Amino acid sequence: MKVRVHVSLKPGVLDPQGRAVHHALEGLGFAGIEDVRIGREIDLEVADETTDAALDEMCRKLLANMVIENYRIEKLEAA
Amino acid sequence: MKVRVHVSLKPGVLDPQGRAVHHALEGLGFAGIEDVRIGREIDLEVADETTDAALDEMCRKLLANMVIENYRIEKLEAA
Repeated sequence: MKVRVHVSLKPGVLDPQGRAVHHALEGLGFAGIEDVRIGREIDLEVADETTDAALDEMCRKLLANMVIENYRIEKLEAA
Repeated sequence: MKVRVHVSLKPGVLDPQGRAVHHALEGLGFAGIEDVRIGREIDLEVADETTDAALDEMCRKLLANMVIENYRIEKLEAA
């Protein structure tokens, strides 16, 4: 099955990459940009019998840094 | 308005970061993983009057590398 994991910085955590993109967009002449934050989208193709608990463990152990990041698991295709 | 830009590598383009995560997950003992690909999710807070053309231009000029990446613009809140 196809699973997508969305990883984003927790609110309040400084996002230097987002700030750099924000400044670069303004430098290119785009106006009205108030905020930019950048996250990751991890597309996994896993065996259909993979449990939700296993997916959760993958996120906690490797895919997300639980100190500064949140994650959300989205199933793109039913098992 | 809130806009989310999804940037992913085009099919066929090698994803070294995805491969590294794939190997790391297997190293941690997770079985049945067939593929891992990693993309970016860019959350923009822009002025409501920002046009679709401007958003498209931001993606083409800065947010995505059109040679190897695809992008998709998703509006999270109506203008």
